[in-house]
Amino acid sequence: MADLTEIDPISRTDRKRAAILDAATEIFLHQGYLGTSMDEVAAQAAVSKQTVYKQFASKEALFVAIVTSMTGAAGDVVQREIADMGELDDPEKQLLAYAERQLLVVLTPRLMQLRRLVIGEAGRFPELGRALQEGGPGRAVAGLSSALARWTDRGLLSIEDPQAAASHLNWLLMGEPVNRAMFLGDAAIPGPAALRRHAAEGIRVFFAAYGNRARQTP
Amino acid sequence: MADLTEIDPISRTDRKRAAILDAATEIFLHQGYLGTSMDEVAAQAAVSKQTVYKQFASKEALFVAIVTSMTGAAGDVVQREIADMGELDDPEKQLLAYAERQLLVVLTPRLMQLRRLVIGEAGRFPELGRALQEGGPGRAVAGLSSALARWTDRGLLSIEDPQAAASHLNWLLMGEPVNRAMFLGDAAIPGPAALRRHAAEGIRVFFAAYGNRARQTP
Repeated sequence: MADLTEIDPISRTDRKRAAILDAATEIFLHQGYLGTSMDEVAAQAAVSKQTVYKQFASKEALFVAIVTSMTGAAGDVVQREIADMGELDDPEKQLLAYAERQLLVVLTPRLMQLRRLVIGEAGRFPELGRALQEGGPGRAVAGLSSALARWTDRGLLSIEDPQAAASHLNWLLMGEPVNRAMFLGDAAIPGPAALRRHAAEGIRVFFAAYGNRARQTP
Repeated sequence: MADLTEIDPISRTDRKRAAILDAATEIFLHQGYLGTSMDEVAAQAAVSKQTVYKQFASKEALFVAIVTSMTGAAGDVVQREIADMGELDDPEKQLLAYAERQLLVVLTPRLMQLRRLVIGEAGRFPELGRALQEGGPGRAVAGLSSALARWTDRGLLSIEDPQAAASHLNWLLMGEPVNRAMFLGDAAIPGPAALRRHAAEGIRVFFAAYGNRARQTP
């Protein structure tokens, strides 16, 4: 049997990189940023410290890669659904499905742990906070905003400022459960039925304000 | 001149307690929870370590006292205004004033630093998170909920679930700016004019959904 390093050198590097990311994710989430050392990451990933530094120039770069990867994976799930949402009819039905999905994808213990960790370090390491802001709420609001603009173009909604409307919707949905989980821990994450009720209430408020039948004057 | 310790022993204790709280607040905000030692707090407050422990049984108890004191002071400002708000007429005008005040009081660098610090430690020290949840958003939503219920009793609003409505309003207002400040740092705190525009937009959405002229069916 041929040596894998010779027939497929790129995938061997990829596997090492994945092993480092997996090991580092567990250690960061359990021990915090300051409590994590590159030595421990190397040992846990069963690679040399040199290999770790070849892939990630610093502990900060490694953590940014983890934030990007974890928020990216969660965001991808939602964005796949949201990408062409503006082409579909019945915005209220589509947004309700989006809201339920978004709440279930984001409100997981791992993402809440990551979020606490990033916020705790955002003062010292602004790159970490920026990665989570852009890959998390920033991306969700941008995707929603595109869909709202497209529905407005198609005459199904009439929203003057899709970006502001998308932000209102995002925080109607995420504000309470995410912030409670930040302070009260993973046990405060609502179950699926409670999240669905919460989604329906947020969508009702949003359409009262932004639906075609909404009161138009402030 | 008489010795102050003899004529006013309670206020001397109070002054020491205040000096400890002041010193500890600065050290916690700048060095984080793990980076703060009771030795340093005692030195900075110019008291003995024994005195610190007489007032606060542990570092955790000291930090809970600081969270309670800082969120309490901010909350008091808002609660004084909100307490009898339901007795006043014109809910839309009252809530707009409340919204502006609440945003300006909460979105300060010190409260945002405290919030980051508490969230970062909430996994390890649930008491800290609970103190901030109860003294911060919990108290704001409870106060708002009372006012909404009173206005409903008086026929000025007709809100079936004041608690849910209060939470929607709170997160329409606080969601975006607070969470951006969590991730992007104190430089991301909007200025007063931007906060006033944001307050007006949130109040518009809230009254579209919950005002007496709102669409009543889901």
